[in-house]
Amino acid sequence: MLTDLPSVERLIEAFRRLPGIGKRTAERLALHLLGAPESESEFLSEAVRNARERVRTCSMCCNLTETDPCGTCADERRDRSVICVVERASGAIAIEKAGTYRGLYHVLNGALNPLEGIGPSELHIDQLMKRLEAGGVAEVIVATNATAEGEATALYLSRQISPLGIRVTRIAHGVPMGGGLEFSDDATLSHALEGRTRLS
Amino acid sequence: MLTDLPSVERLIEAFRRLPGIGKRTAERLALHLLGAPESESEFLSEAVRNARERVRTCSMCCNLTETDPCGTCADERRDRSVICVVERASGAIAIEKAGTYRGLYHVLNGALNPLEGIGPSELHIDQLMKRLEAGGVAEVIVATNATAEGEATALYLSRQISPLGIRVTRIAHGVPMGGGLEFSDDATLSHALEGRTRLS
Repeated sequence: MLTDLPSVERLIEAFRRLPGIGKRTAERLALHLLGAPESESEFLSEAVRNARERVRTCSMCCNLTETDPCGTCADERRDRSVICVVERASGAIAIEKAGTYRGLYHVLNGALNPLEGIGPSELHIDQLMKRLEAGGVAEVIVATNATAEGEATALYLSRQISPLGIRVTRIAHGVPMGGGLEFSDDATLSHALEGRTRLS
Repeated sequence: MLTDLPSVERLIEAFRRLPGIGKRTAERLALHLLGAPESESEFLSEAVRNARERVRTCSMCCNLTETDPCGTCADERRDRSVICVVERASGAIAIEKAGTYRGLYHVLNGALNPLEGIGPSELHIDQLMKRLEAGGVAEVIVATNATAEGEATALYLSRQISPLGIRVTRIAHGVPMGGGLEFSDDATLSHALEGRTRLS
């Protein structure tokens, strides 16, 4: 039946390659598009191609952008003395949404992961070092993920950057705001205790 | 930031138009594609366009197909005296997967819904009547959904087809296999009681 048709099989396969999309969902999305007006599938097909063509990497911060430098790097109101290092564009978006950070970003495009063959040269670390060597940066906030890879990357960056006399900080890990202690795992609680701050 | 870029906004909007995809998921899918190798977005874009170009409606059963007539209608081993009427291609796929049905299908492309302006002429009912008038069909199994619209459509079809002297049947509604009574809603249980069959 329908799912045996080569073009439909390929469409289902294309949806399945997206993160978090399983076989059933991919089939549902494919059937939806085939049943919808042709303009719908044209819109999606064109949007994917167009975005991929227009979006490039900012030559300063390596974030995804349509212009070079990106809007954040070009924004004169941002504090150029602080750079927040994230693994992916999604991290920068999340911090930007929080609304309190006014410095610049640097997107590594992942984290160190020797088992998967991702060493320093696979990440945008060279570009970061060049930005720092150009001067004017007082602090690098390492906001890589709180995973083994993210922690290893933070340690590596700290060792690379310290000799330049630039302060390297790590975002705090602890109990999420609004989160009860009983819902936090052991590692989070250990981190929260270790990173305690003085109230009075 | 990234989500403010016109091409990315449009890509997120394109994903959001798909069923069951919310804002967060659409953003995640867009970021994934922009971060993945260009071949990935090309594959998706091309698969969508290609499927839409190749897939058409079978002139017999109105199911989606790449060939005309479709594989099922062209299959000489199928029982041509029985036609199972479904609302959408997904219904035919579901029945086909169950593996016991050997007749043909007819896809209505929806169900009667006066409030949304869907009357008999919006559905592939004319094509169904032509198939039936051509002769050779002994039974029409109405497998529209167990919704108000599906039931109304079943009733309408039954009234149209009966004068032709063709048997019209409706698929059974009741407690799903493996389903406990305590998990079934009132309407399902009422239907299950009404449609009881004799054991001895």
